[in-house]
Amino acid sequence: MSHRVEILSVGTELLLGNVVNLDAQILSQGLSELGLNVYWHTVVGDNPQRAREAVALAKERADIIITTGGLGPTCDDLTKNVLAEAFGKKLVFDQESADRCRAYFERLGRVMTDNNLQQAMLPEGCTILQNDWGTAPGCAFEADGVHVIMLPGPPSECRPMFRYRAAPYLQQLSEGIIASHTLKLFGIGESTMEAQLREQMNEMENPTLAPYAKEGECELRVTAKAATDEEAQKLLKPTVEQLKALFGSKIYGIDVSSLEEVVLDLLKEKGLTLGCAESCTGGLVAKRMTDLPGSSQVFKGGIVSYTNEVKAGVLGVPQAMLEEHSAVSAPVAQAMAEGARRVLGCDLAVATTGVAGPDRDDRGHEVGTMFVAIATSEGSYVRALTLGNRPMRQRLRTQTTHHAFDLLRRYLTGLPYEE
Amino acid sequence: MSHRVEILSVGTELLLGNVVNLDAQILSQGLSELGLNVYWHTVVGDNPQRAREAVALAKERADIIITTGGLGPTCDDLTKNVLAEAFGKKLVFDQESADRCRAYFERLGRVMTDNNLQQAMLPEGCTILQNDWGTAPGCAFEADGVHVIMLPGPPSECRPMFRYRAAPYLQQLSEGIIASHTLKLFGIGESTMEAQLREQMNEMENPTLAPYAKEGECELRVTAKAATDEEAQKLLKPTVEQLKALFGSKIYGIDVSSLEEVVLDLLKEKGLTLGCAESCTGGLVAKRMTDLPGSSQVFKGGIVSYTNEVKAGVLGVPQAMLEEHSAVSAPVAQAMAEGARRVLGCDLAVATTGVAGPDRDDRGHEVGTMFVAIATSEGSYVRALTLGNRPMRQRLRTQTTHHAFDLLRRYLTGLPYEE
Repeated sequence: MSHRVEILSVGTELLLGNVVNLDAQILSQGLSELGLNVYWHTVVGDNPQRAREAVALAKERADIIITTGGLGPTCDDLTKNVLAEAFGKKLVFDQESADRCRAYFERLGRVMTDNNLQQAMLPEGCTILQNDWGTAPGCAFEADGVHVIMLPGPPSECRPMFRYRAAPYLQQLSEGIIASHTLKLFGIGESTMEAQLREQMNEMENPTLAPYAKEGECELRVTAKAATDEEAQKLLKPTVEQLKALFGSKIYGIDVSSLEEVVLDLLKEKGLTLGCAESCTGGLVAKRMTDLPGSSQVFKGGIVSYTNEVKAGVLGVPQAMLEEHSAVSAPVAQAMAEGARRVLGCDLAVATTGVAGPDRDDRGHEVGTMFVAIATSEGSYVRALTLGNRPMRQRLRTQTTHHAFDLLRRYLTGLPYEE
Repeated sequence: MSHRVEILSVGTELLLGNVVNLDAQILSQGLSELGLNVYWHTVVGDNPQRAREAVALAKERADIIITTGGLGPTCDDLTKNVLAEAFGKKLVFDQESADRCRAYFERLGRVMTDNNLQQAMLPEGCTILQNDWGTAPGCAFEADGVHVIMLPGPPSECRPMFRYRAAPYLQQLSEGIIASHTLKLFGIGESTMEAQLREQMNEMENPTLAPYAKEGECELRVTAKAATDEEAQKLLKPTVEQLKALFGSKIYGIDVSSLEEVVLDLLKEKGLTLGCAESCTGGLVAKRMTDLPGSSQVFKGGIVSYTNEVKAGVLGVPQAMLEEHSAVSAPVAQAMAEGARRVLGCDLAVATTGVAGPDRDDRGHEVGTMFVAIATSEGSYVRALTLGNRPMRQRLRTQTTHHAFDLLRRYLTGLPYEE
């Protein structure tokens, strides 16, 4: 029999619209990958009566209930109390969870207030899901033919708690296994990608093919269901090969997390160092690179040159060039990249300059006019971009940063810069 | 009697986690502003049976039901059929909606396929909510003591349809208005804040007080309900004053979006310029500042000095100091800030250095050891931090960046750096 999952989120902040229900999406994605069918999302506020009713209903119609939120000291552990009550379980004190919570505060150099100890009260006989990303532990139990899993609400805790704690628990409830590969693409629009795939997608049943678009990148997820991982991989392989043939160098990686991760791995592999000079992206290239653990092995640093003064004074962009071409120009982008390479003493450097908006620059360049440059021991290259002029500063900055990493990826793998 | 609203979203893509339920957030925010209480969010897939059950339940417990999604040709107008059935209404053909739909396709230079005409079938006697942002019209009706409003699913249609079509319809149902202020705090933990507030919070009914924590910051939202905005503000004022007295300089702003926004406004007001030097935060200070439109008026630039070479070569940190104290030290943080101020030619500069992990540095400093410095015309100051040593690189970086902006905010408002 296939399972029926309900995701129940508890939090008044969701009903007020203060936050979006990201947990429900995170869990739904994860559950789909496990081959478990989610039939309902329900949200109620921090209100015991309505929480009780929602739990009673979920218990009746679902056989797996996953809750998020309503754990922790600020909400009196509402979810835990209501679930325990609905399934006739007592809450018992768990010393280890209390110790972990206390240690968490000690590491932060803070005093643990007593209300935190509520978090160590857990349903008797449950499997404790240790929370290494926050203070409130999760838990799982089976009662009355229903599996109940409780996870903390903050997405930064819910995400790893699902992946490392709940998913292994749920895996055993799923029949067969689900395997998937995700192809990451840059330099192609979602609708173009879809149009090329349309016929293929409608025909496919196992594996299935799902396209996603986010922040100027595209993803293709190929998923197969089979008795064993080996069989699933056998089903996946021909489709992955077909997609690689179809999209070529637009695919920057398979099962990788980001362009910058691909670039970091290539730099390490080749023993090359990186630096950057940023104007319109204002630190985002450096930030994304240094988000990655291990980036200090290859990343030397960056210059955020938000004024012409810094472009000239620190990066050595000639004053005459700035005056003649303006800061938003291909020659300046190239001079910035070459300047960063020289000043930071690195093998490769990228540079960005452009108009992120909301207004045109003082030379009248449209919002979305961007130049991204790369400087290497073999010379420099500048990519000119026109990214549209709608009010979307963050998207323009993110997109420009993608292009900087794309130039690096193409150089490091011997691909042409454009194709 | 106060209203009880349920938001019912229909869409398998939500249950698969392909998209986040942004509509529910958009509607919840809008409804809160109208003073209408949302008690439930429900999501079901494109499945007639479960949609029927969800509608039956909503009809029983809510007196306003707002649906999103499940309109339009690709889903056979599931929502409309199920709702019409539940409230005993026939669907009737609306010529004007059909004409609008045809005209929409003509403007796009496309041919309208016949399945689109389903969208012109609407519950008899309903108020048609004209959709100027897509093809499927929405509708509203009252039956069996329940108000039903149906809106299209794509957020780009749902958002304006709510604002310009549903909100005016709902306005007449709302008694009074809701007003709120959000106090933003830095330098206090969520549980400490809660402990100080606990008694107060339980007693309060109007205004209410709701605490939130996110990414190392805290928020307190005070919300009042009254007949007019003036009365609501009168209710809010004493509580806001009380909280200001209680938390003092931990409150960095009221109804502001972020620490960096407060800093940007103060810099503009005082006509001072800013620069930064970043090691462990790797560009995040610069990135957050330049996320803000208008930052180019005051932000000159930054140096991401991820190696000692760049700290010495670009920022002028003495080599002997780096050797004696190591890069993760108060003297180096101070020298970085002073170097950035000099090299970038700005009035104020902040610097960060520390161990973001996942591993200790080569001098054995623990992950989470951080130094944040500020350099001004009146001298420098360094804050030393121990932020805990768990695997949470991003959180450490974010937190350290908060501290940099906090030092700036304190300097710019004449507050002591620590209290």
